[in-house]
Amino acid sequence: MAGKTRLSPAIELDGVVHERVRLAILSALGSHGQLSFNELKALTDTTDGNLGTHCTKLEDAGFIRGAKGLLGRRKRTSYEITQAGRVALLAYLEQLEKIMGEVRGR
Amino acid sequence: MAGKTRLSPAIELDGVVHERVRLAILSALGSHGQLSFNELKALTDTTDGNLGTHCTKLEDAGFIRGAKGLLGRRKRTSYEITQAGRVALLAYLEQLEKIMGEVRGR
Repeated sequence: MAGKTRLSPAIELDGVVHERVRLAILSALGSHGQLSFNELKALTDTTDGNLGTHCTKLEDAGFIRGAKGLLGRRKRTSYEITQAGRVALLAYLEQLEKIMGEVRGR
Repeated sequence: MAGKTRLSPAIELDGVVHERVRLAILSALGSHGQLSFNELKALTDTTDGNLGTHCTKLEDAGFIRGAKGLLGRRKRTSYEITQAGRVALLAYLEQLEKIMGEVRGR
């Protein structure tokens, strides 16, 4: 069968984006705009520590940026997706479509 | 914003399917039918040990089954997707579509 030995599109998925919590963060910021740390925590149902680790990894990759601010008298950290993050997310979605096409025979 | 605090669809992705090598194995078997260990190795560009670990995990989940046979005088291990594996893969793809819909605003 032709194409059987080419590399699977799944292997070429961006590992920074692919991890579930990071994918949740990026897709939420890609669709909702800016979200607070607590909003992301509710969306990802994870601990402060785990969410913080994944946010840092996405910041280090240049895919999201954080901004510290005040909400009333309380500190609030918010995040938004960067242009590089949006490019990476859209490239990731295109790669997912290749996988879907493979499975569904298109 | 309504829906901002619901759980992200990315978090609900099946972790057994989501890992890249396993996703490559499942999607290849889902589209090509039976493939040999060496064909899967070429598709996933990984080591024997790593591929074997992921195949075992998928077998333990009941998503693929292996069959040992002979190709000429050489031993050959082949794999195929099970019905449960196909169900899991299709559910996974539906979940991916929810993520795409979220990002693309559909």
